[in-house]
Amino acid sequence: MIVKFKKNVKDIQIKHLQDVLNHQNYKTTFIDGDIYKLLVVIGDTSSLETKRLTVYDFVEDVINIQKPYKESLKQEKRKVNVGNVTFNDDNIVLIAGPCSIENDQSLDLLSSQLVKHHTHIIRGGAFKPRTSPYSFQGIGEKGLHILKEINRKYKVPVISEITDVRDIDLFVKYVDIIQVGARNMQNYVLLEELGKINKPILLKRGFVNTIEELLLSAEYILANGNKDVILCERGIRTFENQTRNTLDISAVPVLKKLTNLPVIVDPSHAAGHWEYIESLSLAAIAAGADGLMIEVHENPEFALSDGQQSLKPEKYFNLVEKIKKIAIAIDKKI
Amino acid sequence: MIVKFKKNVKDIQIKHLQDVLNHQNYKTTFIDGDIYKLLVVIGDTSSLETKRLTVYDFVEDVINIQKPYKESLKQEKRKVNVGNVTFNDDNIVLIAGPCSIENDQSLDLLSSQLVKHHTHIIRGGAFKPRTSPYSFQGIGEKGLHILKEINRKYKVPVISEITDVRDIDLFVKYVDIIQVGARNMQNYVLLEELGKINKPILLKRGFVNTIEELLLSAEYILANGNKDVILCERGIRTFENQTRNTLDISAVPVLKKLTNLPVIVDPSHAAGHWEYIESLSLAAIAAGADGLMIEVHENPEFALSDGQQSLKPEKYFNLVEKIKKIAIAIDKKI
Amino acid sequence: MIVKFKKNVKDIQIKHLQDVLNHQNYKTTFIDGDIYKLLVVIGDTSSLETKRLTVYDFVEDVINIQKPYKESLKQEKRKVNVGNVTFNDDNIVLIAGPCSIENDQSLDLLSSQLVKHHTHIIRGGAFKPRTSPYSFQGIGEKGLHILKEINRKYKVPVISEITDVRDIDLFVKYVDIIQVGARNMQNYVLLEELGKINKPILLKRGFVNTIEELLLSAEYILANGNKDVILCERGIRTFENQTRNTLDISAVPVLKKLTNLPVIVDPSHAAGHWEYIESLSLAAIAAGADGLMIEVHENPEFALSDGQQSLKPEKYFNLVEKIKKIAIAIDKKI
Amino acid sequence: MIVKFKKNVKDIQIKHLQDVLNHQNYKTTFIDGDIYKLLVVIGDTSSLETKRLTVYDFVEDVINIQKPYKESLKQEKRKVNVGNVTFNDDNIVLIAGPCSIENDQSLDLLSSQLVKHHTHIIRGGAFKPRTSPYSFQGIGEKGLHILKEINRKYKVPVISEITDVRDIDLFVKYVDIIQVGARNMQNYVLLEELGKINKPILLKRGFVNTIEELLLSAEYILANGNKDVILCERGIRTFENQTRNTLDISAVPVLKKLTNLPVIVDPSHAAGHWEYIESLSLAAIAAGADGLMIEVHENPEFALSDGQQSLKPEKYFNLVEKIKKIAIAIDKKI
Repeated sequence: MIVKFKKNVKDIQIKHLQDVLNHQNYKTTFIDGDIYKLLVVIGDTSSLETKRLTVYDFVEDVINIQKPYKESLKQEKRKVNVGNVTFNDDNIVLIAGPCSIENDQSLDLLSSQLVKHHTHIIRGGAFKPRTSPYSFQGIGEKGLHILKEINRKYKVPVISEITDVRDIDLFVKYVDIIQVGARNMQNYVLLEELGKINKPILLKRGFVNTIEELLLSAEYILANGNKDVILCERGIRTFENQTRNTLDISAVPVLKKLTNLPVIVDPSHAAGHWEYIESLSLAAIAAGADGLMIEVHENPEFALSDGQQSLKPEKYFNLVEKIKKIAIAIDKKI
Repeated sequence: MIVKFKKNVKDIQIKHLQDVLNHQNYKTTFIDGDIYKLLVVIGDTSSLETKRLTVYDFVEDVINIQKPYKESLKQEKRKVNVGNVTFNDDNIVLIAGPCSIENDQSLDLLSSQLVKHHTHIIRGGAFKPRTSPYSFQGIGEKGLHILKEINRKYKVPVISEITDVRDIDLFVKYVDIIQVGARNMQNYVLLEELGKINKPILLKRGFVNTIEELLLSAEYILANGNKDVILCERGIRTFENQTRNTLDISAVPVLKKLTNLPVIVDPSHAAGHWEYIESLSLAAIAAGADGLMIEVHENPEFALSDGQQSLKPEKYFNLVEKIKKIAIAIDKKI
Repeated sequence: MIVKFKKNVKDIQIKHLQDVLNHQNYKTTFIDGDIYKLLVVIGDTSSLETKRLTVYDFVEDVINIQKPYKESLKQEKRKVNVGNVTFNDDNIVLIAGPCSIENDQSLDLLSSQLVKHHTHIIRGGAFKPRTSPYSFQGIGEKGLHILKEINRKYKVPVISEITDVRDIDLFVKYVDIIQVGARNMQNYVLLEELGKINKPILLKRGFVNTIEELLLSAEYILANGNKDVILCERGIRTFENQTRNTLDISAVPVLKKLTNLPVIVDPSHAAGHWEYIESLSLAAIAAGADGLMIEVHENPEFALSDGQQSLKPEKYFNLVEKIKKIAIAIDKKI
Repeated sequence: MIVKFKKNVKDIQIKHLQDVLNHQNYKTTFIDGDIYKLLVVIGDTSSLETKRLTVYDFVEDVINIQKPYKESLKQEKRKVNVGNVTFNDDNIVLIAGPCSIENDQSLDLLSSQLVKHHTHIIRGGAFKPRTSPYSFQGIGEKGLHILKEINRKYKVPVISEITDVRDIDLFVKYVDIIQVGARNMQNYVLLEELGKINKPILLKRGFVNTIEELLLSAEYILANGNKDVILCERGIRTFENQTRNTLDISAVPVLKKLTNLPVIVDPSHAAGHWEYIESLSLAAIAAGADGLMIEVHENPEFALSDGQQSLKPEKYFNLVEKIKKIAIAIDKKI
């Protein structure tokens, strides 16, 4: 941590601050620069509210040198295993399925096709967090039962989104990966509880959250003991409105640099329109993502949610073929 | 709802869409414009996923005419009563106190001064949602007990932030207003449950949420039966970094136009630094806000959270005098 | 400047960088912290491309301590005089007039009323920068002639926006303040030339520019010799779309802290709709702005540009009365 | 255009607006919906200031159906030829070179290597628009001479950025493509003049501009007669600060859908750091971009500008090999 003093700071004030910090077991080095006077503070400041030092009239600014996140950085290069599927740096994992589960027949029919076309994991929403209280909110627990059936019948892992901390037991019982949606990325109560269970978590970046905040949310899970976290970039809110959100493709290499956790991309929510999903999917794989989560629906024009951003099955299968070619070009398996 | 067709749409396709919509009991009027062909769809489309119609190859866009929110608009001009304090259009309500409750003596000492200086409601955080799992997280339930004591001793309503849906009973017992923080503005499970109780709710705008989303979150509470909702603007995330967030001062007149709910402003979180709180407070009152929520701390340089954005008591009392002058200038009471 | 090394940095690499910097006449202090190794670089780094040091494989980050702007900071507390009008900390200056000058009669009629109602400066656009090439682009040089007539007849300073560096002589001849619009805030060629003339400049913040960038653009003018710069906040682009832009009200106290230049606010462009102008105007004055620039039009429903954000004269006169009350409340003159 | 009335609109008011619009030769259809009353306005409203109708007390909103841009849409599928290089849908064009030209030897040495490694066009800045007046501003006209020499010696087209409308003749004489930088995307005076010459223009998207605004800026050039416009996505300003800007990868398929103009990507300015350029380059090609513009510098640690985002030659050559593999995977030539 660097404390930058105002020009008119007095020696006694610098001394006072040094005493306060030394008292808290920090070492300090004073730098009397040509332009600024600085105090370099040595020691672990991660739990210190450093910015509060700007309350002192003679402090102009406090600059944090230390990154606030820890856990995700110190991991060894590692894999997340979900049933027979492994997320690691060498392969591409495809997750696909409808935004919302509507009934057992439709999900069964769709899943039977998806598993034949290189889809590794089936997704389906049971509890839907919706901006409007008047929108379709999902079929609830029944949806999880249907997913479990799909898992049994096709030997394929399933994933669904949790919205209520009181539902954790239910999800542990029925799904193979628990998804934390963008709106709950900073629901710390939920994250802490998910850190205490033994089930992989797919943590989606909030549409307004920085990469640093995503890593700190991941640490809420990791620091509580659950080491199986998969990160998912799904677009951020910007001023551009031709797409629902702006896919932050740079997040892929940045997250790959800052952490060893698997990183996947959800092009459906980022684009908000099916026409752009192919481009974004291929871009994500080329950028180094470990997988994709794509919304597919048999009849998107009648989907109960997110129809406009769902691919029809044949379009999805066509996309899978293109993904395979890109994967080969960058020496990855699918 | 307006459906805008692509240039090459065929009559049979328009007819098909009309049939689909008529079947769902919507009336349609076809407009054969010089430049575009349109279908005007009449009826309540608030529960229709209108955008999914863009899945049709021949549809270029779907434009919603109807606003998605309802409840907050249809309210009569009305007040929210909290103990002996009333939020309405004629007066200014001041809420003040520390970011986090640290212990009973310090809150008691501070509260005794605040109530003497026109502060109507005492705030204090017990459960703190923090970006980092390594930051101070509040003293928990004990904090609520301390608040209740303040309420009894000084006959002043108290407010604290809820972070866990499982804590609702606790909050109902101990506080007079339950605050929903920015990060939980779209925690719909929490909002729904808060809609079922009989206790005023202070709903803060998420730092990345639109005004429309704030109103829809308010409707989650209103539509479930709880009609005592107070809205709070507290700054949004933008590219500007001289302040922690950018106070959206325009939200005050916009919310006043779109709803009859009380609207207050939190200048502390918006500014992120105590030096700017005075300007923002006076601006908020001049813009028409019904009140302010301000962080005050006896020794901000040792505060366990948000010290840099807390006012020292004497600065706050000085600000209150200025607020009174602005209130007089715009014919409001304090 | 602080250089933060990667964990695996070698002594020889640190030594190499020290040599390079010493060779450029910078003093360096090495800090061997518990967690990070740092190099504190002492000396004026304002012309150094500091970030390029991250090209070194062993450098994790470079942190600038020094602010990049200079001129605006080092000014004495000072005034900008425009004819008989003075911008300083004690009074409020009102600038009003139509977005575009349409013809001489309409501007004359409007101006005759404005000057009777405390308007200190008349504005009017002659050359209009428009997003679409098909929109009305202003009446050009003729508009400047009309403004000059208003100036002569009513003894009131006039202001208009410049869009072409080749028009500077024209503007010097006809107007009392030259306005640089938001889209030209980073047109450095224009700024440099305006720095060489002897005429006050109103520099509007670009709708996507930071406060720091605004100050650096001001320095392009100041550093070239023209010391009469007035800054104008007019809203920034955010995700919120209930208003055309988001008025960054915090920019007023921030700019007041960082500089001694006069700071005014344009609520018309920020709001984008006449209904919000009153609230934003009063907020700006309460926040400490030195003046306002407001669009007024006799018949906004037929205005050739920006009709929706123009006040009708009677609404403007009513607003002026309210501004006067706020001015009194904060001990300013108007 | 759709006019949406307020609930309490009177018939006489609707009639009045219809008369006004009919008088301007627009046809109107009145829709008396269950929830809203609407007026559908038929005819070309592209030059109408539609939003000003909200000035009427009885109008709630005006919704534009018509897109504001025209030219770029109505083009035939087409190519832009620059010397022996063609931008079209079948191939990838690589533009590379230093941010700033520093002297003739260094550019000659670098260019001799670049042309051997599939680089089709050499870039180099002569006039640099810099945020700070104290930064290196380029070597000016001399830089253009050096570029012309490179063009003659290696038979390779060259590109440089224009910053002053008064320099157009100079650029026409010395370079093969004139680049309009992000900060000048809305410098309409410059765009209009560039529309009158016969030289390809590379138009970079402003870092705060929407795709719609980019297309409207392109129309300033196209509508004035110059049909050779290449669009360039280079990142937009968002709240994320791990990268200099956020590359809007979705802009590639969106621009490809809305226009027939070539679309390239500049990963250097988007990333702001050389480590991310490879990922973003491969992503851009996979997403469908027609080319890339990449900053390459022999000694980035001593570059006079943008060193941190420049690739060293060997890293660039390595990247070119990977680009070739992606190009093959999506059936394009390089």
